[in-house]
Amino acid sequence: MSFNTFGHMFRVTTFGESHGVAIGCVVDGCPPLIPLTEADIQGDLDRRRPGQSRFTTQRQEADQVKILSGVMVHPETGVQVTTGTPIALQIENTDQRSKDYSDIQNKFRPGHADFTYEAKYGIRDYRGGGRSSARETASRVAAGAVARKVIAGMSVRGALVQIGPHKIDRAKWDWDEIGNNPFFCPDKDAAGLFADYLDGIRKAGSSIGAVIEIVAEGVPAGLGAPIYAKLDGDIAAALMSINAVKGVEIGDGFASAELTGEQNADEMRMGNHGPQFLSNHAGGILGGIATGQPVVARFAVKPTSSILTPRKTVDRAGADTEILTKGRHDPCVGIRAVPVGEAMVACVLADHLLRHRGQVG
Amino acid sequence: MSFNTFGHMFRVTTFGESHGVAIGCVVDGCPPLIPLTEADIQGDLDRRRPGQSRFTTQRQEADQVKILSGVMVHPETGVQVTTGTPIALQIENTDQRSKDYSDIQNKFRPGHADFTYEAKYGIRDYRGGGRSSARETASRVAAGAVARKVIAGMSVRGALVQIGPHKIDRAKWDWDEIGNNPFFCPDKDAAGLFADYLDGIRKAGSSIGAVIEIVAEGVPAGLGAPIYAKLDGDIAAALMSINAVKGVEIGDGFASAELTGEQNADEMRMGNHGPQFLSNHAGGILGGIATGQPVVARFAVKPTSSILTPRKTVDRAGADTEILTKGRHDPCVGIRAVPVGEAMVACVLADHLLRHRGQVG
Amino acid sequence: MSFNTFGHMFRVTTFGESHGVAIGCVVDGCPPLIPLTEADIQGDLDRRRPGQSRFTTQRQEADQVKILSGVMVHPETGVQVTTGTPIALQIENTDQRSKDYSDIQNKFRPGHADFTYEAKYGIRDYRGGGRSSARETASRVAAGAVARKVIAGMSVRGALVQIGPHKIDRAKWDWDEIGNNPFFCPDKDAAGLFADYLDGIRKAGSSIGAVIEIVAEGVPAGLGAPIYAKLDGDIAAALMSINAVKGVEIGDGFASAELTGEQNADEMRMGNHGPQFLSNHAGGILGGIATGQPVVARFAVKPTSSILTPRKTVDRAGADTEILTKGRHDPCVGIRAVPVGEAMVACVLADHLLRHRGQVG
Amino acid sequence: MSFNTFGHMFRVTTFGESHGVAIGCVVDGCPPLIPLTEADIQGDLDRRRPGQSRFTTQRQEADQVKILSGVMVHPETGVQVTTGTPIALQIENTDQRSKDYSDIQNKFRPGHADFTYEAKYGIRDYRGGGRSSARETASRVAAGAVARKVIAGMSVRGALVQIGPHKIDRAKWDWDEIGNNPFFCPDKDAAGLFADYLDGIRKAGSSIGAVIEIVAEGVPAGLGAPIYAKLDGDIAAALMSINAVKGVEIGDGFASAELTGEQNADEMRMGNHGPQFLSNHAGGILGGIATGQPVVARFAVKPTSSILTPRKTVDRAGADTEILTKGRHDPCVGIRAVPVGEAMVACVLADHLLRHRGQVG
Repeated sequence: MSFNTFGHMFRVTTFGESHGVAIGCVVDGCPPLIPLTEADIQGDLDRRRPGQSRFTTQRQEADQVKILSGVMVHPETGVQVTTGTPIALQIENTDQRSKDYSDIQNKFRPGHADFTYEAKYGIRDYRGGGRSSARETASRVAAGAVARKVIAGMSVRGALVQIGPHKIDRAKWDWDEIGNNPFFCPDKDAAGLFADYLDGIRKAGSSIGAVIEIVAEGVPAGLGAPIYAKLDGDIAAALMSINAVKGVEIGDGFASAELTGEQNADEMRMGNHGPQFLSNHAGGILGGIATGQPVVARFAVKPTSSILTPRKTVDRAGADTEILTKGRHDPCVGIRAVPVGEAMVACVLADHLLRHRGQVG
Repeated sequence: MSFNTFGHMFRVTTFGESHGVAIGCVVDGCPPLIPLTEADIQGDLDRRRPGQSRFTTQRQEADQVKILSGVMVHPETGVQVTTGTPIALQIENTDQRSKDYSDIQNKFRPGHADFTYEAKYGIRDYRGGGRSSARETASRVAAGAVARKVIAGMSVRGALVQIGPHKIDRAKWDWDEIGNNPFFCPDKDAAGLFADYLDGIRKAGSSIGAVIEIVAEGVPAGLGAPIYAKLDGDIAAALMSINAVKGVEIGDGFASAELTGEQNADEMRMGNHGPQFLSNHAGGILGGIATGQPVVARFAVKPTSSILTPRKTVDRAGADTEILTKGRHDPCVGIRAVPVGEAMVACVLADHLLRHRGQVG
Repeated sequence: MSFNTFGHMFRVTTFGESHGVAIGCVVDGCPPLIPLTEADIQGDLDRRRPGQSRFTTQRQEADQVKILSGVMVHPETGVQVTTGTPIALQIENTDQRSKDYSDIQNKFRPGHADFTYEAKYGIRDYRGGGRSSARETASRVAAGAVARKVIAGMSVRGALVQIGPHKIDRAKWDWDEIGNNPFFCPDKDAAGLFADYLDGIRKAGSSIGAVIEIVAEGVPAGLGAPIYAKLDGDIAAALMSINAVKGVEIGDGFASAELTGEQNADEMRMGNHGPQFLSNHAGGILGGIATGQPVVARFAVKPTSSILTPRKTVDRAGADTEILTKGRHDPCVGIRAVPVGEAMVACVLADHLLRHRGQVG
Repeated sequence: MSFNTFGHMFRVTTFGESHGVAIGCVVDGCPPLIPLTEADIQGDLDRRRPGQSRFTTQRQEADQVKILSGVMVHPETGVQVTTGTPIALQIENTDQRSKDYSDIQNKFRPGHADFTYEAKYGIRDYRGGGRSSARETASRVAAGAVARKVIAGMSVRGALVQIGPHKIDRAKWDWDEIGNNPFFCPDKDAAGLFADYLDGIRKAGSSIGAVIEIVAEGVPAGLGAPIYAKLDGDIAAALMSINAVKGVEIGDGFASAELTGEQNADEMRMGNHGPQFLSNHAGGILGGIATGQPVVARFAVKPTSSILTPRKTVDRAGADTEILTKGRHDPCVGIRAVPVGEAMVACVLADHLLRHRGQVG
């Protein structure tokens, strides 16, 4: 029901506007006795943090997380652990630059949620995009760091696989390259191409879309659930809820439409540790339940509409006008969506793990 | 939380296996005083019913719906209306052909949910696919017919826009053609092409994937909600929950990745009845909230793995083996997914309408 | 959110009106591989069934339950078990006696929900009370029978401990007496007293209230949850949701108001199998979590307002009038509330068991 | 599902331990454009704040609330209003007195949740009771202040009606007296009696139970919902979730058990503004739906077990021992439960208002 909560057993409720006092979240349902410190969370936040390269917004936020509740130092081990009670995480907004918002206050930016928030609520927080700002995703990344602890044994990694018309070469995929470039790009050569291409976009005051791929390994066969709690259904909702996402696919995704049954069926053979699949067109999920293979999800991020070229729009008074967005923005918001996508998938897996344990024991 | 319920204010809980006594659903939260008869629902069910052309499974099910509760004849008007209490809908399984299931009982069909259900529950209803059968979608279509009544004023229509490598010509889109061919295809010429192509697939005992597009018109600006209750997020989950779906996109979808901000931004101008958009790359949704333009969603359906060519698999005893599926199956399950997709989007819109009314009044 | 669903992991959705085609429920989230037949459920339904003594309504309903889905005969053991998919249960309404409802159709019975349903929905199913009829509780009892299977090892028993001014003597409590009288009364002598007293009530065309006590044994210490998912909070909601219930208490309940801290604190001593409590003022729950002692809950049921003495009321047209209720009714609805109360507590325990397993493992 | 969230459309998630950094809550689903300042909330918090008389704990907490999100100054009116996005409220813990907790760290206080938290989670935050401390209720009161804004036009007031064996005289009920004594007592004479009685309890280092009554006026007929979303069911759960509550009743409550149908039925007559009830045994709720009369709920609070008399207990190592609680505690926790009870009922009403609007429009 909730507008700002996701998950069922592992539940995350986020709050906060781009230019308010603070943003944050409450993680409810986390199992007890899991070691957790602010440093565990800070690492993931730092990967998402803006201002780390010329390819992301120059907004400078320390994004320092503070744990307000739900942990204590274990009296016997001396290790700080979760207690089973809600974990409140808070990130202060430190770079609420005092600026002139009069332009976007009264005009609707094409492609932004300005018009729709106002249509829904009769009011919108125009300062930095308010609640619709991608800043909200910092809370998700913080929650995702907790989720990773819950699904110990599973790994969730993301990669940028396409910017504009440029796609990576899958044959060159190397997870170790992810940290070597500002794009989370697993193909070293593509990363160079991305840099050149994006410099052009950035200098033109333009923006461009992207595609991100998330791969979860170690997901046990049987995790997930049928019908309306499908693992892929929940991943789809989670990824589509990220700002600017317009498409989600699992495994072969839209390419499945062109496959025959013979091509698409992932055949099986007994392996040393049980049944093995000979291919993974399914992206690790059949009938909403994990097969034990890597879970593979991709999502498309549209270009931000904050660009330097004036666009036709209307203002709140109902007059035709134009607008261009001068603020600090990402030329490709897809880049910073990588750790956000990872966090969402980690949260979905944590939720499913607890629900699965509950029903099946 | 629920595994078999979707929606929040307009809630649908489905039940039933392919070869059990009956399938059905309970629709909870439907507003009172809405005219509703079995005939209203039967029309939608008939569109989804198998056995209507040579391109769908020859299973013969009457799919006759019965309303068990939640309606009464209004004492003053004499019209049967909803009462605000739960509407239970039931469809008996009439074609539970007695057959030999020993083959699929012990082998996992590649590409099916056989293996994953067994991995999760330690048991699976192998008769006709049990709960994982597309038969469950009849319950969704029945619920969707109720949802359509709730969102009176909005229309939700679907179309098959791609089978295998063959796509429709969007310039030839004519909604009136939908009913003139067995594919729900809006392009008359493509329908002919689809027939030829699919005859080949069918005769080869093969199967093929497809892409369906759902268009909702009359959705008022402001409907939907931000963050984790996004209209597009809920549509993504709803469509991804349909059997065999591997991808979902909104508006330009994955093509957005190749657009610049200038191309993607839907500019605005004042029209006679308020702000108007000059394009609809967004597919009618910004920030999770409807813009007032048509809501456009597409989903990809993989080919069914029930094919006549033997595939490698393993059996429950852990031995390598092969399987081919002889039963009655759809060469392109995407066709009958069209009314199912419509139903899911109608349910999501009904749910959002009630939630929106609740919060914003 | 749901109006007709209760539970989170073990979820029950009920449907049906007193005089409709059928009533029933969908039990979702039940673990797989639990033996379950219609006979398992029928036993509990028979305990609640009306018309078994002169002290309950003479409505004759077979209350025969049918399992529509969610079970199958295990291929190896030959035992019918749950499969993890939703279990739909249906009970046909066989005694929909054709009668003249014109009186209650247009008048609001004082003490009934007639007026409030009409105020809420603008319509009400006046036939036999429609959805507000106690008939709905048959569905709960059916679901409760499934819940009992889930919490194997725990027992949930109920007893009538007060009718009107007459209370049982707790010193004479004997569970074995419960089945020996038509009141579920554990005190043999009180049962005789109840019979005499209730005969007078019945012959006067009057009705009377009652108090029921539910005792759950074998509930493991640690089951339950803090704050808003408290075991006692959920029991309170579950019991208060039963028709005609006006009060719920746990352990010493309202009597706690008169206790000092010294009297109320349940002291502890080590026993052979761990910590033991020396008393049970808490009714087996502290901080919303089970202590391991018997969970004790009581609820008060008001008298039915279906009586032969005319009462002042108004009609739908807004005129003052009088009404007396001639139909078949229970002189003490509290009696049949005993198995319903048991069912609700069993469902709450099943739900908590699955949630506990989920979070704590 | 959530352990720390209550409500459906008006949702409150609380977090925080007694001696952690901060406590607080996130209020989600609040309608937009409602004037809201910290001062609006502070007033209610101040009524609950400890240390205001000798009859409550001497813990000194400023309980200063801070709004972190969800409001902005309306650009046209200059009034700070809600925006429809989540409202995060935070209260810092200022009096985390550094003290020696070694005693309660290793012993289970009889009547406290020490033992059950440890049984459930394998760890407990022993500092000041951690999450099980009544300090959590400050978050509820803050949320309740927001709820009051949502249900403008309805009033929710509470009163202490019994301490130990002493009950108020209902004939002397005067709401204006509530603020004139430290007990929220509506009977001036009883307040004097309470003071004398409680001084004795306090000086003896003992504690005592109490009964609180909450009255909501202006609740429109039709608010609420049937079956499992009953207004009284939700109120029961909400009040039972407050620390130390052992019983809840609506209207005549447990006294209903002794009434006949004639006595209990609230008769009706047409009034100037529609149907009127001639009595209110029902406490303003029939069939889970409001009648339009005052909604009347009562709850019993047990005595705190923090007393100066040593009680038998066991320690974590499994040895028999004794404990007495020296900290700062309330001799009658029921007193400060009055504003908490009001807050819970206000939240339930706000939730039902939004849900009702959603379904019925």
